[in-house]
Amino acid sequence: MSGNKSFILRDRIIRNSNLSPMSRKILLTLEEPSLINNQADVDKVKRTLERELDAPVNICLAKMNIISSKCRSGHWKVTVTVGKKNTGWDVIDVEDGHVETPLYGLAVDVGTTTAVVYLVDLTTGDIVEAEADYNLQSTLGEDILTRIYIAGAERGLHRLQDAVLQTLNGLQRELCKRNGIDAQKIAAAALAGNTTMIHLLLGLNPANICMAPYTPVVNDPGLLTAQEVGLNINTAAPVYCLPGIGSYVGGDAVAGVLVSGMHKKDGIGLLVDIGTNGEMIMGNQDWLVACAGAAGPALEGGVAEAGMRAEPGAVEQVTIDSGGSVSYKVIGGKQARGICGSGLVDCLAQMFLAGIIDRAGKFKKGDYYTVVQAAESATDKDIVVTQRDINNLMRTKGAVSAALELLLESVGCTLEDLSSFYAAGAFGQFLNLESAITIGMYPDLPRERMFRLGNSAGEGARLALVSEAKRMELEQIKSRVTYIELNANEVFMNKFVSSKFLPHTNLNYFPTVKANMARHGLITE
Amino acid sequence: MSGNKSFILRDRIIRNSNLSPMSRKILLTLEEPSLINNQADVDKVKRTLERELDAPVNICLAKMNIISSKCRSGHWKVTVTVGKKNTGWDVIDVEDGHVETPLYGLAVDVGTTTAVVYLVDLTTGDIVEAEADYNLQSTLGEDILTRIYIAGAERGLHRLQDAVLQTLNGLQRELCKRNGIDAQKIAAAALAGNTTMIHLLLGLNPANICMAPYTPVVNDPGLLTAQEVGLNINTAAPVYCLPGIGSYVGGDAVAGVLVSGMHKKDGIGLLVDIGTNGEMIMGNQDWLVACAGAAGPALEGGVAEAGMRAEPGAVEQVTIDSGGSVSYKVIGGKQARGICGSGLVDCLAQMFLAGIIDRAGKFKKGDYYTVVQAAESATDKDIVVTQRDINNLMRTKGAVSAALELLLESVGCTLEDLSSFYAAGAFGQFLNLESAITIGMYPDLPRERMFRLGNSAGEGARLALVSEAKRMELEQIKSRVTYIELNANEVFMNKFVSSKFLPHTNLNYFPTVKANMARHGLITE
Repeated sequence: MSGNKSFILRDRIIRNSNLSPMSRKILLTLEEPSLINNQADVDKVKRTLERELDAPVNICLAKMNIISSKCRSGHWKVTVTVGKKNTGWDVIDVEDGHVETPLYGLAVDVGTTTAVVYLVDLTTGDIVEAEADYNLQSTLGEDILTRIYIAGAERGLHRLQDAVLQTLNGLQRELCKRNGIDAQKIAAAALAGNTTMIHLLLGLNPANICMAPYTPVVNDPGLLTAQEVGLNINTAAPVYCLPGIGSYVGGDAVAGVLVSGMHKKDGIGLLVDIGTNGEMIMGNQDWLVACAGAAGPALEGGVAEAGMRAEPGAVEQVTIDSGGSVSYKVIGGKQARGICGSGLVDCLAQMFLAGIIDRAGKFKKGDYYTVVQAAESATDKDIVVTQRDINNLMRTKGAVSAALELLLESVGCTLEDLSSFYAAGAFGQFLNLESAITIGMYPDLPRERMFRLGNSAGEGARLALVSEAKRMELEQIKSRVTYIELNANEVFMNKFVSSKFLPHTNLNYFPTVKANMARHGLITE
Repeated sequence: MSGNKSFILRDRIIRNSNLSPMSRKILLTLEEPSLINNQADVDKVKRTLERELDAPVNICLAKMNIISSKCRSGHWKVTVTVGKKNTGWDVIDVEDGHVETPLYGLAVDVGTTTAVVYLVDLTTGDIVEAEADYNLQSTLGEDILTRIYIAGAERGLHRLQDAVLQTLNGLQRELCKRNGIDAQKIAAAALAGNTTMIHLLLGLNPANICMAPYTPVVNDPGLLTAQEVGLNINTAAPVYCLPGIGSYVGGDAVAGVLVSGMHKKDGIGLLVDIGTNGEMIMGNQDWLVACAGAAGPALEGGVAEAGMRAEPGAVEQVTIDSGGSVSYKVIGGKQARGICGSGLVDCLAQMFLAGIIDRAGKFKKGDYYTVVQAAESATDKDIVVTQRDINNLMRTKGAVSAALELLLESVGCTLEDLSSFYAAGAFGQFLNLESAITIGMYPDLPRERMFRLGNSAGEGARLALVSEAKRMELEQIKSRVTYIELNANEVFMNKFVSSKFLPHTNLNYFPTVKANMARHGLITE
């Protein structure tokens, strides 16, 4: 695991033969009615589908005339598209004749900052194309707490819902256009997001998410329809929201567990997803525990003095050599406009190893560090990291590290017991592993046990879309996880304080960092 | 069985203890969320309901915010109204606190001429009040075939659908107003009607009902919602259409079987429902066969010269004494304006016994009979029965009688094998039994074996509304019945010809009529 290339666990992809997608086409050849057998058209289609699917099939009134007329125009050959319901199936489209064109679904990662829509061919399980865009909600409020606050204002929730729907429908339109697909042929969608994002997308009141006892309106909305949700695809298409565990461990984290496979392994796995919240799930085939803490938005664009999103112009990698001179890499190779989250983590690690800041994260001299000189920057100003930026980042890493210790203690394990570490989420995908370990945000494990999951939210959504078994696994993971509430947890607060050192008060937890510090002359071994 | 009072088999009413209505209220007392148990609101309600109902419960997106807020305003006591779906249940209403006010349903007899709506208390199973009105479709087309024809014209189907919905919603409004009930508290409806009426009500194309091989769009629409159907009650309320057997044996006839109980008895029963069609079902616990023939609209208002509906001013009973002088009874005790179906049957029987017409149904002298003199009538004109009226009626009775013979033959039985005869439908309710036997429309069985079912369509709908077991019975009856197509059936045509005599070519089939004819000097014994 090195470099910033996303690594999706491709061996988990389900191939054609194992597909059981949320929507599917069924080609029917029906007996032509006669005086001997004049069963009603809809009854005949329903019974035939029920035999085929071995499950109840629902046909809404609006489809009945269509079925009758397509049966006749297709000379008793029809192609019926059925979509999964909470119980049984729904007829969502009827075509005359046997129409073997592909059927599509959308796998959606509803991120706080970025939404990614994958156009999936439901007949092969493959991704046709993906498209990402900023979640338009960002223009209303940058972080989750701000959005929950806005949702409480008049029409605030409605505006937030509209914004994200506009984002998703825009991405869908673009994908359909580029691939020449009629939106009506998109017959299913699976959405993964944190609990607040799912609430805002569905127009559900998020107020209780951030107030004790942190009770969401819903964690497991089940199968809804595109019409209910407001997605511009086949109105009757089933829409599945990946189930969340609680206010701060959402369907995106559950997707991470699914994609990692830790819930089916013997050895203990640890999944960490750092964003606005630090979400963490630990366990194996026998048990799963989770916790989350407001990691703080230190890593999100706009919070640090020179912070920005990971987009062209952002410093994403920083190196400070032994002579103290800094070099950096800018996304898109342009002049730098600011620093994104991964650049910030790199910078902190490098400043620490270069002896510019001490173990408490304080500048030894002055109160900022210049990463990019004004002369080189696109803004004609120095791009700097300030003491305040570092303090924010220290809180984030402290929260993550404290949560990990608490989880380990609560199940009576130590770091040595971890067989696998999975970095999930957008930051997990792009963060420099060594930097994250150096600042004590990730545990210092043998590197061969550490994996990036790539966009596990999107991949989890895709798996739910194409496999009933994977959807069942998601529900099982959701119900198996024991959630440990960190808010108002005293043990956590104590650990949080001791975690606010680089990499940790106890250096023995970080053997490779300790060795590196010695190499840099920061300590004597 | 005598007189015109409707006799509903009241012993079949399900009492409180056996109620399992299509919609019901469930009073929930939920655990208040805490840091120890902060399950999401909707998830908690869903799981609790599923435990309570031992079946899957579906909660649509639109109800989720409401559930969350009512849980809080009701201090974790809520009253949830659930409605039956094809699989599991739907949450259709949520109130805060425990609200033990009754819940209502509508049992509807969707007749070609008249619609009857029964307001049913779902918590007791009792009828609160009933209200009837002409089906507004009559203003567009009197009989079924005309309506099917109209449905084929531009917007014709839409106008017919609107008309019957206007009728039903008008009756509902009146019932709600008089009983001080909010239409939102009507949480279910069950509809019984012939196949064409159900098609027109649901906006389904009836064109194939009257064209070989007589295949309806649907016989068993399953559970729809009030919103889909267009009934002005709780939009999410389940609406059940009693399943039909074919184009000419509808859910109203299946309701008749249910109400008669013939499908669970040892002895063979015969159910006859004469309207525009003569529908007939015969059988017992082991087998059921059905047939139907276009009985002709002879008994419907507007077809006979002086024909009118059974409403105030209609001659409903006719007696011709041995001296040849006629007496009659008018509905509402007013001056006569015309003759309704039961008056016509009475008149034919009496004219036959009085020797005014012969066994072939021909006037021995002249070509009409004056029932009401102009001086006594409300129209200042003679009210007469013409040879043409008699010919129409002879065709109707001939069709019914021929169908009965064919049914008996097809199962290898004779009239003696019939343990019970059930007169269903509006005519069955008001027809004079002896007159119907005299003209050979009903079989000449021992009178203690003959029963009127009253409005069995309405009663069947009520049973479906309040009892899951009865709803299952309806589905079983529907699937057990073997339908015998009479259209284009040669044996039927032969029997039809020989049935066009009074009471029949073979007098031995009608022993009491034969004896009566002898008493009247029409034959020598």
